[in-house]
Amino acid sequence: MSVKKNFYSDNVSGAAPEILEAIVAANAGDTAPYGGDAWSERLQQRFAELFETEVEVYPVGTGTVANGLCAAVLTAPYGSIYVSEAAHVHGSECGGPEFWSGGNARTVPLPTMDGKVAAADLARAVEEAGARSADVPPRAISLTQATEVSTVYTPVEVKDLAEAAHARRLWVHMDGARFANAVARLGCTPAEASWKAGVDVLSFGATKNGALAAEAVVFFNRTLAETIRYRRRRGGHLFSKMRFLSAQLEAFITDDLWLRNARHANAMAQRVREGLTRIPGVRFWSPTEVNFVLVALPQAVWDGLVAEGYSFSRRGAPSEGVIRIACAFDTRPEDVDALLATAHRYASPQMRADRPVPAAR
Amino acid sequence: MSVKKNFYSDNVSGAAPEILEAIVAANAGDTAPYGGDAWSERLQQRFAELFETEVEVYPVGTGTVANGLCAAVLTAPYGSIYVSEAAHVHGSECGGPEFWSGGNARTVPLPTMDGKVAAADLARAVEEAGARSADVPPRAISLTQATEVSTVYTPVEVKDLAEAAHARRLWVHMDGARFANAVARLGCTPAEASWKAGVDVLSFGATKNGALAAEAVVFFNRTLAETIRYRRRRGGHLFSKMRFLSAQLEAFITDDLWLRNARHANAMAQRVREGLTRIPGVRFWSPTEVNFVLVALPQAVWDGLVAEGYSFSRRGAPSEGVIRIACAFDTRPEDVDALLATAHRYASPQMRADRPVPAAR
Amino acid sequence: MSVKKNFYSDNVSGAAPEILEAIVAANAGDTAPYGGDAWSERLQQRFAELFETEVEVYPVGTGTVANGLCAAVLTAPYGSIYVSEAAHVHGSECGGPEFWSGGNARTVPLPTMDGKVAAADLARAVEEAGARSADVPPRAISLTQATEVSTVYTPVEVKDLAEAAHARRLWVHMDGARFANAVARLGCTPAEASWKAGVDVLSFGATKNGALAAEAVVFFNRTLAETIRYRRRRGGHLFSKMRFLSAQLEAFITDDLWLRNARHANAMAQRVREGLTRIPGVRFWSPTEVNFVLVALPQAVWDGLVAEGYSFSRRGAPSEGVIRIACAFDTRPEDVDALLATAHRYASPQMRADRPVPAAR
Amino acid sequence: MSVKKNFYSDNVSGAAPEILEAIVAANAGDTAPYGGDAWSERLQQRFAELFETEVEVYPVGTGTVANGLCAAVLTAPYGSIYVSEAAHVHGSECGGPEFWSGGNARTVPLPTMDGKVAAADLARAVEEAGARSADVPPRAISLTQATEVSTVYTPVEVKDLAEAAHARRLWVHMDGARFANAVARLGCTPAEASWKAGVDVLSFGATKNGALAAEAVVFFNRTLAETIRYRRRRGGHLFSKMRFLSAQLEAFITDDLWLRNARHANAMAQRVREGLTRIPGVRFWSPTEVNFVLVALPQAVWDGLVAEGYSFSRRGAPSEGVIRIACAFDTRPEDVDALLATAHRYASPQMRADRPVPAAR
Repeated sequence: MSVKKNFYSDNVSGAAPEILEAIVAANAGDTAPYGGDAWSERLQQRFAELFETEVEVYPVGTGTVANGLCAAVLTAPYGSIYVSEAAHVHGSECGGPEFWSGGNARTVPLPTMDGKVAAADLARAVEEAGARSADVPPRAISLTQATEVSTVYTPVEVKDLAEAAHARRLWVHMDGARFANAVARLGCTPAEASWKAGVDVLSFGATKNGALAAEAVVFFNRTLAETIRYRRRRGGHLFSKMRFLSAQLEAFITDDLWLRNARHANAMAQRVREGLTRIPGVRFWSPTEVNFVLVALPQAVWDGLVAEGYSFSRRGAPSEGVIRIACAFDTRPEDVDALLATAHRYASPQMRADRPVPAAR
Repeated sequence: MSVKKNFYSDNVSGAAPEILEAIVAANAGDTAPYGGDAWSERLQQRFAELFETEVEVYPVGTGTVANGLCAAVLTAPYGSIYVSEAAHVHGSECGGPEFWSGGNARTVPLPTMDGKVAAADLARAVEEAGARSADVPPRAISLTQATEVSTVYTPVEVKDLAEAAHARRLWVHMDGARFANAVARLGCTPAEASWKAGVDVLSFGATKNGALAAEAVVFFNRTLAETIRYRRRRGGHLFSKMRFLSAQLEAFITDDLWLRNARHANAMAQRVREGLTRIPGVRFWSPTEVNFVLVALPQAVWDGLVAEGYSFSRRGAPSEGVIRIACAFDTRPEDVDALLATAHRYASPQMRADRPVPAAR
Repeated sequence: MSVKKNFYSDNVSGAAPEILEAIVAANAGDTAPYGGDAWSERLQQRFAELFETEVEVYPVGTGTVANGLCAAVLTAPYGSIYVSEAAHVHGSECGGPEFWSGGNARTVPLPTMDGKVAAADLARAVEEAGARSADVPPRAISLTQATEVSTVYTPVEVKDLAEAAHARRLWVHMDGARFANAVARLGCTPAEASWKAGVDVLSFGATKNGALAAEAVVFFNRTLAETIRYRRRRGGHLFSKMRFLSAQLEAFITDDLWLRNARHANAMAQRVREGLTRIPGVRFWSPTEVNFVLVALPQAVWDGLVAEGYSFSRRGAPSEGVIRIACAFDTRPEDVDALLATAHRYASPQMRADRPVPAAR
Repeated sequence: MSVKKNFYSDNVSGAAPEILEAIVAANAGDTAPYGGDAWSERLQQRFAELFETEVEVYPVGTGTVANGLCAAVLTAPYGSIYVSEAAHVHGSECGGPEFWSGGNARTVPLPTMDGKVAAADLARAVEEAGARSADVPPRAISLTQATEVSTVYTPVEVKDLAEAAHARRLWVHMDGARFANAVARLGCTPAEASWKAGVDVLSFGATKNGALAAEAVVFFNRTLAETIRYRRRRGGHLFSKMRFLSAQLEAFITDDLWLRNARHANAMAQRVREGLTRIPGVRFWSPTEVNFVLVALPQAVWDGLVAEGYSFSRRGAPSEGVIRIACAFDTRPEDVDALLATAHRYASPQMRADRPVPAAR
């Protein structure tokens, strides 16, 4: 396999081999459609074991719908959801919450430190909202775990936020598109990172971490799940051949595949960060706690990497020059090392002077 | 492989081997996410060739979303869609059109003959609606092709309806969840069955006919596609690893796989029908033009089949006793023959009492 | 005052003098806005007395919003409402239920006899819907009282329907845009016509019967009212100077104004009907139980009335030639007599040819 | 009339006598319902004259629906609207834009100076939004005129904002709940304050300034009005006796009543401000350019006013202690003087010492 140059997103990768095998294995024979199959029925128990508690699990195809369904459920009959300024559900899902709730949900951004909302800010926001009797009433908070800037809420931080939320009659949603990376980082159990810290419902991500296309909405507070079945169906996420989603999710949580993949991706991001640290002029935008690095590179390094065919996504205002270097379950150490070597090469005037840049670029 | 006893739906089958192979093949290497991959980009051209005209193609995960997106687009800013009384989009998608349109779309059933709406009935309905100035204004008609009762609109019938619709400023949608089966039956080109007959936008089905989970919204009238990109994204059907949907659709239309699968399924349904014809007391509910048979069986036959582990879905009011026997791309002649033999056995008192089941089955 | 020639609708009239006086009287002094005024606070008690039970009352500006709010509340989180084929909420409010519910409500028409739905048809519809697991689930029935064809449900008929509904876990809404006319006709108490017969929530109409612009949503089942306050506000029907709506409603139910107005309008419609009965060729479309007459007139009569400046609204398909002759609280006997005299004149060829129009008109 | 002590809102007043007279005058005779009356038809021409250009005018009952309809129209098929942080449409209408648009509209707050958005901030926000391809796309800006903090955009400021908006393909909405107060303050023509400065559509307020319940949506860009008729009807703001709304609006703009009322209210607020200026410890929150004063009073003054029965609304976080003193068209100089005298009395230690505070407090 050629060296990986696409660090644009953890979504540029395909599916993990274990996931593909599970899909192929699930293909044999006939099953009841629409989730009446053995894989889907087994999933409830498998997730209950994973999370050490009774749960209701609903597979869906994308993270946007997982978050949108949660927003619709948590704000009914209508209300607002506090999010971080950078929250994916707020700024990167084309207004999914408004859509999925039929105009009943609004996302309200709170200030963040290292991508994380603080309980005190939540408390203050709810208090101020209480003084505006004709505003959309707050109903929930949504925490992105891991955050959009590669940081992780500790269980204590989640607990503080959840207590502040519950004390004010707000539900707690966790957008766990990178829940695996967060748990891998924290070294705690999935239960400790979620319901034991007060999370009511979790968007459990798999696609960014090796699934082909599968996410799950996991209700710890099962009374909230009452309407999800219908909402999912009309939204087109009750797949007729649901076994193929369930099989992906089952393989994902079997033998710790999800954590192994996440640990590896996290480690690769650390390797990127450590390598870049030694380049003068590199400014990191945030801590690197999970599988990607937010960083502003010296212009020469950036130009060089692009010239060599590397790709990244941008973050923040264009003037800031911050990029995201995303590692995935299939990023290899040699891929990272090649990236770092290229960066170092362009960072060092002598090296650039000694060796002519190949004309072909 | 054991004999197939699950005739509940064409969705009880898994994916066709060619589809699975395409998924596995698409797994290699990194790609741009969200449809920026080579498979997705190629798809536009492949569908243009298939339909012999420029089109815009949008892969989605389920038929419900394909129909919902079309309903939202066609009724904007708001309006009603004429459908058949039995239309899947009306009665089997949990109110998908209302949901996808944010409350702007209403489905209005028209009477049918053999599952098909007639142009004269459409014309009359529009005229009457015109007299109700405060009713939801009609904006479109949605034809299910093949219909929910196993019949097929001929191109001439579609053309008549489309002309009646267009003359009254209504758009024409075709819910082609079984478009393949219809084209296979008609023996015409995909173009003749769709845009040449006046269809503006098509929900092109693949899942019921061998895909794992993939449908496509195909715009022949490309001005209608303007908002689809955003609507699909907020609805959670812009898959990050879109290549896996596009690869399925590409394999589906390559080397006529879609038509080969459909022809086979149609033939199996004919085999079922012919076999049942010879059982006294069997009443067919509608013609069998595509891949399933709607039929009321004598009680003894029904009881026997259920006792032997066969499953079917019911249709119409429970008192009518009508079932649907659905064949799929992977239904084998021997599966049908086993079904028929069982039916015949229970239909004939002497056979049940005296004779062992023939070994050949 | 000149003779009334406008029988198009009971809405062509202005407001009753008692209503205008109440508005003028309410103008003095400052009040808390948004319903914190004395009129609005008093209204709860006044309606409780009128209906002989505790209620929650929410004034709104139009019947469409009263019905829309009820539809949104009764179908939440989503579902369908059975209505009559002719129901105003279904065909004359531009899709209000879909709008007010954010796409969660669908109206499903049932067959009617004399404009009324029968309990047996409701029961059958619910049963059939139960067999369609992916259809929009039924949640309520909405009865128009008086109906769109000038008939009235008896309390026994309402009770039968309500029992059929409640036994199937459906709510019962009454669209009482002409509730006053119905109660006047029935000679029963408002309680007997509503909650004692099983009605959960009532759109209590006033505008068609003498108010300037005021309707009320009256919750007998007060647990249903939980979200109405917010829904009304975002929908723009929490009027800042709410006292002017409440004052209208208070005057409307004071000293039986609502019933006196309704009785009068009903009597005027009877007078119209009796007068028309004597014209050969006149066909009545339905019984005349409240304040309007549905009738097909001989062409000469119709032409003559139009030529003389009379106006009516049409009903049904244009080919049927049915018109509605609507009487209001302010229709005078001499207005009716002038209408009848004109009709008779044009009905009789000799009269038209030979005799001058009688001076008495 | 007793002295006015209710300065909570300009909505605590009743209707101006000219408005009530117009309502009473409009009551005579029958008219076509639903806006087919002479008052409503005349309104188009009257507003065209007022604004010196062709317009389309749609009367509605409240400001929330005027703004909601505009939001729905301007964001279709979906998108975001920039507003000020304090915008009524954002924080005081229970999510009206989301509701009226069926989940298609989002309000996005921009920073303000003295309640006003600056063109440079708008430009920057649009630029940043352009970098977020999966965010809700910006479609419009909504300016509140006069603002929520008693300031006024000059025509030049509006023009700058409108040019910045139009250059980026955004529409310009003006929430003119207090448009009259703004025009009165500016001394310009209504045209100069609206379409000549680039406004596409205006929520023209009347209720806060003397109407009973009437606002108008005024389209200068008439192509935007295409869907308003249906949207208004399904939203329950096509009043059947529309003449009563139109008559209010006609009286409002006849003989400059709207400007006379607004000038008076503005002057009363100036009188309040000037009187308070002389009290030590009084902090004004913003300039007082229209009919209300935002101010933090010394605790003793606040306590005294409350004890004497005065009422005001609070603004901002409770800890700030800011109140709004709102004057209306019917606030008399003696009302203001009594308020000021009371404030001064409680502000002066000697006075308080001389006279014992009544025990009841």
